[in-house]
Amino acid sequence: MNKCVIPISGGLDSTVILHDITNSKLYDEVHAITFDYGQRHKREIDCAKWQAQRANVTSHKILDISFFKELSNISSLTNSSIDVANTRDILGDPQTVNYVPFRNQLLLTICCSYAESIGASTVYHGAAMVDSQAGYWDGSEEFLDSMNSLLLLNRRHTIKIEAPLICKDKSDIIRLGVKHRVDFKNTYTCYSGEELSDAENPASSSRIHGFLQAGYIDPIPYKQDIPWSQWNCKPIKT
Amino acid sequence: MNKCVIPISGGLDSTVILHDITNSKLYDEVHAITFDYGQRHKREIDCAKWQAQRANVTSHKILDISFFKELSNISSLTNSSIDVANTRDILGDPQTVNYVPFRNQLLLTICCSYAESIGASTVYHGAAMVDSQAGYWDGSEEFLDSMNSLLLLNRRHTIKIEAPLICKDKSDIIRLGVKHRVDFKNTYTCYSGEELSDAENPASSSRIHGFLQAGYIDPIPYKQDIPWSQWNCKPIKT
Repeated sequence: MNKCVIPISGGLDSTVILHDITNSKLYDEVHAITFDYGQRHKREIDCAKWQAQRANVTSHKILDISFFKELSNISSLTNSSIDVANTRDILGDPQTVNYVPFRNQLLLTICCSYAESIGASTVYHGAAMVDSQAGYWDGSEEFLDSMNSLLLLNRRHTIKIEAPLICKDKSDIIRLGVKHRVDFKNTYTCYSGEELSDAENPASSSRIHGFLQAGYIDPIPYKQDIPWSQWNCKPIKT
Repeated sequence: MNKCVIPISGGLDSTVILHDITNSKLYDEVHAITFDYGQRHKREIDCAKWQAQRANVTSHKILDISFFKELSNISSLTNSSIDVANTRDILGDPQTVNYVPFRNQLLLTICCSYAESIGASTVYHGAAMVDSQAGYWDGSEEFLDSMNSLLLLNRRHTIKIEAPLICKDKSDIIRLGVKHRVDFKNTYTCYSGEELSDAENPASSSRIHGFLQAGYIDPIPYKQDIPWSQWNCKPIKT
């Protein structure tokens, strides 16, 4: 039995990995986990549920780790009194206030624990090229390699973390999603947590840029008017 | 401001580290965390509270991470339908049923997140020599080194994990505790979770062996009659 564990946030990147894996038929069982860590953008959890069902995963757990919000309160994503930094604010900032200390290491460690418990060989990590470009050390290739070195010490049950998007830019990821007929309408990216995504938010602006580069119209609604037709972007056929 | 974070279980090892640190006056602030992960031996949490108060720490959080029990249910410590393996059962077993998958990595990662949030330089890890001897990969020096290599990647806020007992045997640790006037009556070690500790339990038997080697009487009660006087062990002066 070949099993894997995949954390899915409901965002674009982990959703594309999810459908890539389930379509590939590489695994007999695909176990998804979504974390409720007190993030401002809880709306993404509903998207994660929708996508897990669509991908027909073996199991999908929603884990309440909201204790984390209390501990790690220096991030705009977990502390509502800190404003989310917009794209202009964070130019050149090596670690923005949108960074949540050790979030990725925590979530991957929980996934590894679950993987060992159920006998899974692989844990997926949704890091994409934009994460290390944005200064998130825990989205870098060095972080991935270092986590995998650590995992090799567990000789009884070795798990490998795979991050298939870590060298891909947003447009590559969107094209891969289009290939897998991912319904992007049911993904949520904006850190603001509002129904209408804010194009000035760094996560949203990188998403819009990716759709523009890939030549597609992002099907989610934005606060601002996005000139898709002026950019010659076309709708995605689903 | 020099700050540290120390996870304290209420067991013997982390209690000794706690008093060693607070007596050393190395830090302006000592922040303790105790984890409720659904362990069978919850009794230890009361001991942790007692010791934190005694050590006069800056803060002590009790974190409910009981979601972990559901995920990591292959261990006797988190799954009440699995018997705790006694000392005889686990001789030569490279990874016993008392091992909780990735527990140490999880707890240390949470501590690191908290350390970054409050600006602490050091996180303590209670691993002792007996842990790697018992086959726990996540109690080994290699694990410590590998975690520290990973932490170096976080350039904005570098944290070091210190494990001062990792090369010490139980009797050394007990002698260090005696030096710091640790009240061992308020520590709990047995995996069984019962009021009277069971000498056949591997954690308890290593504790008893340590007291015997150090020449002291362990002040906690055991189910069995322990022949302290026959072994010429003396009471600890407090």
